[in-house]
Amino acid sequence: MAERQDIHPSVQESLERVTDLLHKHELVENLVHRRQGPRQELVENLVHKLHFVELQKLLDALHPADVAYLLESLPLEQRLVAWDLVKAEREGEILLEVSDAVRETLIAQMDEKELVAAAEQLDTDEIADLAPDLPREVIQDVFRSLSPEEREQLRSAMSYPEETVGALMDFDMISIRDDVTVEVVLRYLRRLDEMPDHTDQLFVVDRTGKLKGLLAVNRLVVTDPETPLATVMQPEVVKLHPHEKAQDAAKAFERYDLVSAPVADEDGKLIGRVTVDTVMDYIREETDSEMLSAGGLREEEDIFASVWKSVKNRWTWLAVNLVTAFIASRVIGLFEGSIAQLVALAALMPIVAGISGNSGNQTITMIVRALALGQITAANARKLFAKEISVSALNGLLWGGVVGLFAFLIYHNWQLGVVMTGAMVLSLVLAAVMGVAIPLTMQKLGRDPALGASVMITAITDSGGFFIFLGLATVFLV
Amino acid sequence: MAERQDIHPSVQESLERVTDLLHKHELVENLVHRRQGPRQELVENLVHKLHFVELQKLLDALHPADVAYLLESLPLEQRLVAWDLVKAEREGEILLEVSDAVRETLIAQMDEKELVAAAEQLDTDEIADLAPDLPREVIQDVFRSLSPEEREQLRSAMSYPEETVGALMDFDMISIRDDVTVEVVLRYLRRLDEMPDHTDQLFVVDRTGKLKGLLAVNRLVVTDPETPLATVMQPEVVKLHPHEKAQDAAKAFERYDLVSAPVADEDGKLIGRVTVDTVMDYIREETDSEMLSAGGLREEEDIFASVWKSVKNRWTWLAVNLVTAFIASRVIGLFEGSIAQLVALAALMPIVAGISGNSGNQTITMIVRALALGQITAANARKLFAKEISVSALNGLLWGGVVGLFAFLIYHNWQLGVVMTGAMVLSLVLAAVMGVAIPLTMQKLGRDPALGASVMITAITDSGGFFIFLGLATVFLV
Repeated sequence: MAERQDIHPSVQESLERVTDLLHKHELVENLVHRRQGPRQELVENLVHKLHFVELQKLLDALHPADVAYLLESLPLEQRLVAWDLVKAEREGEILLEVSDAVRETLIAQMDEKELVAAAEQLDTDEIADLAPDLPREVIQDVFRSLSPEEREQLRSAMSYPEETVGALMDFDMISIRDDVTVEVVLRYLRRLDEMPDHTDQLFVVDRTGKLKGLLAVNRLVVTDPETPLATVMQPEVVKLHPHEKAQDAAKAFERYDLVSAPVADEDGKLIGRVTVDTVMDYIREETDSEMLSAGGLREEEDIFASVWKSVKNRWTWLAVNLVTAFIASRVIGLFEGSIAQLVALAALMPIVAGISGNSGNQTITMIVRALALGQITAANARKLFAKEISVSALNGLLWGGVVGLFAFLIYHNWQLGVVMTGAMVLSLVLAAVMGVAIPLTMQKLGRDPALGASVMITAITDSGGFFIFLGLATVFLV
Repeated sequence: MAERQDIHPSVQESLERVTDLLHKHELVENLVHRRQGPRQELVENLVHKLHFVELQKLLDALHPADVAYLLESLPLEQRLVAWDLVKAEREGEILLEVSDAVRETLIAQMDEKELVAAAEQLDTDEIADLAPDLPREVIQDVFRSLSPEEREQLRSAMSYPEETVGALMDFDMISIRDDVTVEVVLRYLRRLDEMPDHTDQLFVVDRTGKLKGLLAVNRLVVTDPETPLATVMQPEVVKLHPHEKAQDAAKAFERYDLVSAPVADEDGKLIGRVTVDTVMDYIREETDSEMLSAGGLREEEDIFASVWKSVKNRWTWLAVNLVTAFIASRVIGLFEGSIAQLVALAALMPIVAGISGNSGNQTITMIVRALALGQITAANARKLFAKEISVSALNGLLWGGVVGLFAFLIYHNWQLGVVMTGAMVLSLVLAAVMGVAIPLTMQKLGRDPALGASVMITAITDSGGFFIFLGLATVFLV
């Protein structure tokens, strides 16, 4: 434990030490392969084993989350060597901590027996988290080893879709009956060896299991034991439902600074709880996947994934962009006659498309964020439209003026400058209108407004920008 | 309290009700201005007051975080009307909860006395959070009203830069001496009315205030009171230092599922604590500002900010992009002779630049993420380079082939198709090299690799893509 006090340097040091040991291990392996003399081999095997012993010690001393981090930072081959050295009883916890992509590589390495053993060490809600990555036979084996109550929990945990409160829920709550005194509660708690992690409150239920209120552990400590429970318990601040969106639960945790919250079914019966650590992991994953999808990566990529896997991961996005690029290219094709007459148009057109793309993306970022925060209502949507259009028109005049001046200075053609300025204003306004309209429409259609919004706006501002600029030029200049 | 159980619908409903009431208030105001008859005015004033009473009741019943959310969702004028109706003793808390941009508008509305009164209701670490937005005289007044110990805390809290642990720290911890029994601790705690929020553990210190270990409250509850403290206390999992990066503390909270962690100075003396709710807010702000800066917004924008303010917020990014667009335009300008001879080049060139920009951004997203997770070491950087180049070359051949075929089909010129394919491969490889090199270099220079990386890669792939494609075309086709 003591080593973990200065956590950051020590984990980094461990990573370096592990890499070093694995590197030596590889060198030895190579030697063994090259020179086949039996004595040589003996010595090298010895060195080999010494390294392994140190490596194993190192891994054993680390927190499961740190081992997970370490495995994620190792190239595939070294990762699997290290994984073999991890104690069997820790494998379950560590599988929970690693990223999906890395988990796949680890599970592929394990046989059925190992997987069952690893899963059996976990709580039912944790097994449910792993389940999608486990072979069907393993899940069946694990299921058979559970008590009837646990089977029920596992079934329930696996039944909720990924983005719901049910998927974040665990069953480690302590519930107490509402007709006892604080004394009784304290006696009951003392019989437990320890309370589950993140137990900041006990859940008070009635005879039928219905949630009646909460008793903060901190309150329990400062209360006179003779007090009846009913007088110290408090109404719950937030009561979650298993089918509610996980995102709403996360918002509630952020807004009301919760450590845990009860989950109850339609009848108000307590069925589980959600804790802040799960919520924090959820938020991290959610923002991560937003970042990745904004960059056009389909899923989190193991940085040491094979080239082929990476190509496939980035595939869709490039294909979509290719289609929009083809369309833009055909828009330009329409005006090839004008370009042939005035080649300057070819050099200037990417400026119009580029700047309106940037401006449209700014608007979309704003609107998606305001939608996520729930700040946009029917009443204020029109105001927002008006505002964004004004901002863009102003930006268009301003930067369009600069761009027009640039065109004039280079090509000594003032009409070209004026067309350039006009095209900038029009295409920035187009970008603003679409930047507000796209996310609002997606939201109305019940889709995630962040998803693909950036591709769409860029497609529109590219083709639109080229069309507006080349069109104006064809009408007024050619 | 009970209304807050079904938190999400109720807050949304409140927002709609408030908007409705404010709308009526505006209508009445307009009427009063138009018709000046004294009886009319009387009636309307009455209606007016009834609305205000209901509005005030509504606001009083909401959690401060919900009032903050509501204020953020109202246009400026209505926001200030609602703000006037908030009870003075809640203003401090609410100011803490609103976003920076909205806080500014609220503070601008308050006079010095109100501000001092609001600040005085807060803890010292909270006052420190507000301080940058408060006028100097207000801070001096508040400072004078504090006890010497609080003054010391405020001074210390204000002395830490924004991105450090010190800025996240609060002073609400309970510390106990290490030479007592559990019984004594329990008696001490019962004398407190209640424990501070997020007290999941007590901090054990020696005679000189040095941190010795932790005592989990949950452990306290299940332990026999006669036990000496030394035998139940545990070593701390993480000990933070006030000058450590806030980001590292956040990582530790995520990794080890902490609810609170002690902060100690160089001598190991306990000086404060950090709690998970602050960390969660920090993570949210950090990812928010990443999203905003990725979209080229300098700071969080009040969605109802004036047009002028918004224009200024989006200014820098557009200016930077204009410069890179000018450069790309000049690169094309170099090849105007070739374009005049073969106009097809003008229509095809944005495809090359666009796709390599997308591919480069994918690489950068990956690398920035791996850097943030600390997964990239000197040992594996070369492997990553090799992998990204292979991925890009493969993508280049694949999509370059498609693009080449497209060019051939449209322009019936097979040489043009081959040049197109070659240009795609080269510019995707360029994108990959820069996509790895830019963030790694930024990191080495001690700068944030996420910042501006996307602008840089796009600038390079635009100009580079145009140059490679038009250059190859000039050499082989014209």
